[in-house]
Amino acid sequence: MNTVIDFLNTNRDRYLAELKTWLAIPSVSALPEHAADMKRCADWTADEMRRISLQNVRLIETPGNPVVYGDWLGAPGAPTILFYGHYDVQPVDPLDLWTSPPFEATVRDGELFARGAADDKGQVFMHFKAIEAHLKQTGRLPVNVKFIVEGEEEVGSANLDNFILSHKNELAANVVVISDSGMFDKGVPSLCYGLRGLAYFQIDLRGTKSDLHSGSFGGAVANPAFVLAQVIAQMKDKSGHIKIPGFYDDVRPLREEERAEFKRLPFLETKYKQDLGAPRLFGEKEYSTLERTWVRPTFEVNGMISGFTGEGAKTVIPAVASAKVSMRLVPDQDPQKIGDLFEAFVRKVTPPTVELTIARMHGGKPWMTEFDSPFIQAAGRAIEQGFGKRPVFTREGGSIPVVSTFQEVLGIPTVLFGIGLPDENSHAPNEHLDLGNFFSGTIASAFLYQEIASVTV
Amino acid sequence: MNTVIDFLNTNRDRYLAELKTWLAIPSVSALPEHAADMKRCADWTADEMRRISLQNVRLIETPGNPVVYGDWLGAPGAPTILFYGHYDVQPVDPLDLWTSPPFEATVRDGELFARGAADDKGQVFMHFKAIEAHLKQTGRLPVNVKFIVEGEEEVGSANLDNFILSHKNELAANVVVISDSGMFDKGVPSLCYGLRGLAYFQIDLRGTKSDLHSGSFGGAVANPAFVLAQVIAQMKDKSGHIKIPGFYDDVRPLREEERAEFKRLPFLETKYKQDLGAPRLFGEKEYSTLERTWVRPTFEVNGMISGFTGEGAKTVIPAVASAKVSMRLVPDQDPQKIGDLFEAFVRKVTPPTVELTIARMHGGKPWMTEFDSPFIQAAGRAIEQGFGKRPVFTREGGSIPVVSTFQEVLGIPTVLFGIGLPDENSHAPNEHLDLGNFFSGTIASAFLYQEIASVTV
Repeated sequence: MNTVIDFLNTNRDRYLAELKTWLAIPSVSALPEHAADMKRCADWTADEMRRISLQNVRLIETPGNPVVYGDWLGAPGAPTILFYGHYDVQPVDPLDLWTSPPFEATVRDGELFARGAADDKGQVFMHFKAIEAHLKQTGRLPVNVKFIVEGEEEVGSANLDNFILSHKNELAANVVVISDSGMFDKGVPSLCYGLRGLAYFQIDLRGTKSDLHSGSFGGAVANPAFVLAQVIAQMKDKSGHIKIPGFYDDVRPLREEERAEFKRLPFLETKYKQDLGAPRLFGEKEYSTLERTWVRPTFEVNGMISGFTGEGAKTVIPAVASAKVSMRLVPDQDPQKIGDLFEAFVRKVTPPTVELTIARMHGGKPWMTEFDSPFIQAAGRAIEQGFGKRPVFTREGGSIPVVSTFQEVLGIPTVLFGIGLPDENSHAPNEHLDLGNFFSGTIASAFLYQEIASVTV
Repeated sequence: MNTVIDFLNTNRDRYLAELKTWLAIPSVSALPEHAADMKRCADWTADEMRRISLQNVRLIETPGNPVVYGDWLGAPGAPTILFYGHYDVQPVDPLDLWTSPPFEATVRDGELFARGAADDKGQVFMHFKAIEAHLKQTGRLPVNVKFIVEGEEEVGSANLDNFILSHKNELAANVVVISDSGMFDKGVPSLCYGLRGLAYFQIDLRGTKSDLHSGSFGGAVANPAFVLAQVIAQMKDKSGHIKIPGFYDDVRPLREEERAEFKRLPFLETKYKQDLGAPRLFGEKEYSTLERTWVRPTFEVNGMISGFTGEGAKTVIPAVASAKVSMRLVPDQDPQKIGDLFEAFVRKVTPPTVELTIARMHGGKPWMTEFDSPFIQAAGRAIEQGFGKRPVFTREGGSIPVVSTFQEVLGIPTVLFGIGLPDENSHAPNEHLDLGNFFSGTIASAFLYQEIASVTV
């Protein structure tokens, strides 16, 4: 490993120069005027894969932007890692808030400023350079690798599920590695081993065929906005506990080891509350704030509308009232089953004075690789070697849909090997990447192959 | 009275021709392009008052359209009636839904179609013609009368309260008569002796300084949209009873005589429900539907908004949630006191996890003249003589703000002497007035002076 690490340490300037040329391509997938840039960026990605000696490099067409594929399969019997990343970036507006132009990558105070620096070119490039170091210095990797770098992540990865399904055999591997997320905080390397799922609904209540004058008709009929409030209010008790019968049945209890792990994190409730501007934090008393956002399911109202919402006063009884509500789910809750429980409960508590419609909008399974799984632990050792510090094993409150797809279609675990920081403005002006994390990341990535090579598959 | 009635019956064609010329003036107060028409209409009204031999006729300027004033005060010692009506009309759009042009009054099947036919020129004109018949045939009236016909009723009567206040002495009278409302149904002459009041509020709850990602932050903080639902849901129980402590303290109980009176009305719950398109009617079981809308106070949500309300799904925890809520009040509830009770209760049930703001938007006192008051009974006898049928004494669920103003500023009761019908499209295309009701109304109006003359004041 020493020659590999030496190579990584002595080529830093070149890496930066190369990454800057990739970042110079404005591969904004959301904007049609960048269609040619998308193609140019896919080509650059493929060329880079060839430069670092990956094999079978090609663009695989989809109904949208192509997926760039490359592999190195010269380690028969060793595990195979499937890397996933993306070469598209977010739009840059408002442009005038950028200190330096978004597509002219600029280093300031040890940070590389450019659109895509953290999300996700910088993180993909980190792995490219680690692969390159191995292949240039030793002619081989201790594991097999397959790379897919897509061009539609920032517009919802509409073609990715189909791509994975239709290339299921080619993508066969033992573990997925994704570097498209972050670490807990600067100087706090971390490995996320769990994500929440989602079940999202719209509830519509209709009272009458049109809005009514609240003077003439107030008292005659149920008010659907009031009924909506009644229905929603019954979903949780005052302590924040969800009242849908059976809702918690499949919730995997928080392990004492996980709780101990989370407690290692530097987390200041006071600062967190202040950053959010909330009068106070709130939720189930038996769990800390991090635990509530990571390992506990939620019920949230995402939107609500009814009747007159302009300036002033209008005396109507609304004809309809609508709410968008969603539940974040945790292992082993199933969005389909939770949807059934939710729907049954809403139907039960909604009075017959209104017409109820429930639409299921969106569902995603929660995901978790037990943090003592060999792949997670291997990644942890790699991070420790790259960053000089044992990582903290964390979970996260959001969802990364592709992780569930890999789980379901390929049946393999995922390691979220992210080196972004929470304040690096992924989707905002002045996106940047901490170069210290980037260089440590290349070393951690180099160790990752070695550590995963030792996992029995 | 016979000569007066004969005069009324023999001059019907002339009345129609005259009313048509008034209706031909497009006095749409809401539209600036009709400013000259407003003036023309005020002048026509004043000229008509002079033609029917009212005295002291003049336009009284306000910051908006003038009030037309006229009186006849030749019955010293007899009661004085203050008539209120308005010469402005609603806009006419959508014009293409009118069968005949809105400002070319047209008779079809015994109905006079024109904007303003029912609301309110036709009803004011009915009194003009009764006055005319008395003064032309007998040279006198059995009572004193004062007329004020304003030009801003359809735009909220913004200058009327000030007008009444600043002309308090000139307007001194024993009773107000307003013909700007309707009877219960065709063939069901009725006299409304009570209206509900109003207390209207906006509640805003703020959770955090901006919307949050429901994945990353769900579980950490209270969701203001959910809290709003919780707060609103606590305002009424499942039977529709309002839970604000003290809310019902000043509610005047429904008298058995009133209940018996309302029962005389032809009211078909099935048809009413079907017209509204409601799955079922709803409210306090102890009261009939008419009683709930007339004599019982309400709590209604008039509007509600929070978070994401567009198409599709967005996973946000809203920063703010707002509702407009209002209570219809009945005698002897006071909007100020109810506002205090409401505000105290909302503050009590709102948890400290959100910031609460309550704005008082609008308040109006309920109004009622006991239906056995001599003025109401006098009006009832007049209606019976005009329409050949004893009227039903009703209350209504809405508010007519000017009635409260008369009550408060002049300290006198109001008789709502309306001859419109519920389906006469006052504010819609094809507004019309039943000519049978109009002609019966002129006779009822003629008897009204005689009947009120007998009231001891």
